[in-house]
Amino acid sequence: VAVSEVRGQDPDGRPGTERLSQRARRVGAAYAGPGSGADVPAGEDPPIGFVAGLPDPAVLPAGELTAAFAKVLATDTDPALQYGGAQGHPALREWLAVHWAAIDGAPGSAARFTLTNGAAGALANIADTFLDPGDVVVVEEFSFSGSVRTLLQATPRIETVPVDRDGLDPDALADLLDRLAAAGTPAKMLYTIPAYQNPTGATLAADRRRTVLDLCARHGTLIVEDEAYREVWFGTEPPPSLYAMAGGAGVIRIGTFSKILAPGLRLGWCQAADDVTGALVATRTDMGTSPLVQRAVARLARTGFLDAHIPRLRGHYAAKSAHVVRGLAAHCAPYATWQEPGGGFFAWLTLAAGTDPLALAEAAREEGVTYVSGNVFAAGGDAGATSFRRWGPGDSPHLRLAFSHVPDDEISEGVRRLGAALARAAGQR
Amino acid sequence: VAVSEVRGQDPDGRPGTERLSQRARRVGAAYAGPGSGADVPAGEDPPIGFVAGLPDPAVLPAGELTAAFAKVLATDTDPALQYGGAQGHPALREWLAVHWAAIDGAPGSAARFTLTNGAAGALANIADTFLDPGDVVVVEEFSFSGSVRTLLQATPRIETVPVDRDGLDPDALADLLDRLAAAGTPAKMLYTIPAYQNPTGATLAADRRRTVLDLCARHGTLIVEDEAYREVWFGTEPPPSLYAMAGGAGVIRIGTFSKILAPGLRLGWCQAADDVTGALVATRTDMGTSPLVQRAVARLARTGFLDAHIPRLRGHYAAKSAHVVRGLAAHCAPYATWQEPGGGFFAWLTLAAGTDPLALAEAAREEGVTYVSGNVFAAGGDAGATSFRRWGPGDSPHLRLAFSHVPDDEISEGVRRLGAALARAAGQR
Repeated sequence: VAVSEVRGQDPDGRPGTERLSQRARRVGAAYAGPGSGADVPAGEDPPIGFVAGLPDPAVLPAGELTAAFAKVLATDTDPALQYGGAQGHPALREWLAVHWAAIDGAPGSAARFTLTNGAAGALANIADTFLDPGDVVVVEEFSFSGSVRTLLQATPRIETVPVDRDGLDPDALADLLDRLAAAGTPAKMLYTIPAYQNPTGATLAADRRRTVLDLCARHGTLIVEDEAYREVWFGTEPPPSLYAMAGGAGVIRIGTFSKILAPGLRLGWCQAADDVTGALVATRTDMGTSPLVQRAVARLARTGFLDAHIPRLRGHYAAKSAHVVRGLAAHCAPYATWQEPGGGFFAWLTLAAGTDPLALAEAAREEGVTYVSGNVFAAGGDAGATSFRRWGPGDSPHLRLAFSHVPDDEISEGVRRLGAALARAAGQR
Repeated sequence: VAVSEVRGQDPDGRPGTERLSQRARRVGAAYAGPGSGADVPAGEDPPIGFVAGLPDPAVLPAGELTAAFAKVLATDTDPALQYGGAQGHPALREWLAVHWAAIDGAPGSAARFTLTNGAAGALANIADTFLDPGDVVVVEEFSFSGSVRTLLQATPRIETVPVDRDGLDPDALADLLDRLAAAGTPAKMLYTIPAYQNPTGATLAADRRRTVLDLCARHGTLIVEDEAYREVWFGTEPPPSLYAMAGGAGVIRIGTFSKILAPGLRLGWCQAADDVTGALVATRTDMGTSPLVQRAVARLARTGFLDAHIPRLRGHYAAKSAHVVRGLAAHCAPYATWQEPGGGFFAWLTLAAGTDPLALAEAAREEGVTYVSGNVFAAGGDAGATSFRRWGPGDSPHLRLAFSHVPDDEISEGVRRLGAALARAAGQR
């Protein structure tokens, strides 16, 4: 149900939902139709679900978190349980500065980091701080639908650039930025996920990164770089971040502990130049996120647990990815193409011509496997909630398989079922 | 420093903070000037601070929280550490429904509650969902500055109504609503803190509540009722909430676990009619607050700890309040007036005519006692950060004493110092 369809009635004329804001109408409810993964009823024999970008429960460090919370509550009771300020716990920001400087030489100081309610909270803060209604925001043609909803709240105009296996297409970006400037509506912001992009898994090549930075500097376009999946690389590390390459000028980097620790902590971060960080912090009205959670995570960071945990996660998810890729080769090769994931939680499939996506959705339901249709991530098109529906609900030639959360012993069977569904849907369009 | 004064410079033209949004410019940074409580440097002999509306560290239940987090992480590991959804943990919402139905008969069901990042998060969600730029929002002439900042983000026009010891003045509200309607700019929203108002401590009388409801229903004005302090009553319970009296129609109630448990949990809530709740949840983009924290608090709620803790808090803060009132009578009576707090964390003083607030601020600094000047809470006047400065920085005849966080053995000495400062500042204007 789109928000704009929700309308209250009160016999005495007392206000309900008759006059929702433009923000509310624009953002819409999260898409829940065909191919969203939310359209499959859990029955007696629940499907194998390649739906959500969740960590594997097998690697959630419950014991370490228990010890960290206990220690913080015992030793830092008052600061952990009172308000912690909008920017967040200095010790965790200090760890982030050292951590990221070591990874890609990003100019680091704790003062450049802000702790947020996940990467989503960081992006909302950025949108609040920089976007006015009608501003133009450029995103990849397939992008994380949650981020697009967050951006849409600021009621900007969304434009898109194509993505291939090396990330967003810099020639298309150059053309788009030129066109927008010529029309008197220069792009205010580029939101990009350059490493193990959600949903395509693409990583922006090093030479493209330099071009993107130059183009955006020339057009005065602020870059928001979402590195939610960056640390989960398989074999080869991704190129340095746009933030690091730019020395922090003109780029805001956002990230999260959701993928390397746990989403349930709702803890993300934002790295930006000093003046930008000042503006972001000053614009916040949420009185900060939990200092208790921040201090527990700081403990896991400073005791070295995270430094050991992250490499373990790389191996863990690399094995799951390889498992998926073997299954795809065995069962799906005639019916779709894909690229081996270099990191992250997702495989992105493109259906062979002639395969009907809606027939596939129906067959997958019957075979007992779920995925998310590419249309959920298609950010272009009309404004509002409908912007996720370029092809109509479920009717996209792409699909995202999230393998991170699927138990190891179900991956093979799940991909086999997908192959069976593909075989049934092949040649039906 | 107001946000609008923060401007970035980059030699290569890369964007910084040159083009902040209207939201960012409007909300401004939190006030930090004279009388804010942030203007007193901590020296070798720190002042006694009646500044922040914080719980007493003596009643923060660290041990119970440690046990609750440990139990939740042991038994509900996966749901506590994955995403928990925008509306929040059903068991805690169920407890809230039963709890509030018992207090004031508010029509209750878990479906009408949403869990948020404190009451501040609830208010931000409401503003996002209902306010467009230019909409008129009515607030009490003195109100919580954090809430006013949150409302200002939506760039509405703020109008105010006077407050006396029985809460907001219904005649003034009637006049204002009529004037606004006649001008073609009817009030979209009334934000009120009807119980132990921050900063004045006033509680809206029962008969006024009925009048306020009738007026707002007639004008189609949505009421947002902030009950952050409601449960901390001394001796006599406050009247039923506006939400309960209206049967939930036309009123959104917000609250928090910050005052009855701990601010560091960053956990608040919102209670509203079904369709309003649906719109609020659909407008959120933050992927919810921490399900781990929600489940730990649910445990403290469902095991009965909270039901025992809240009455203890009432006695604890009532004793502190009585302590303050005795001190005021002994040391400050010739120089100021006040009303005995009926609940909450604050005493509100009005200086006698002829006492210069800036001379008082200087004398208080020298005596070693701090408070917050009334101008911080004065919500009327110009838009933006300056709206908190009706009298110019610190130059207000009112001051707020927050007694909740001051150790028992410092209250007498702190109020004695305030009396000494008042005596020095008396007759200086």
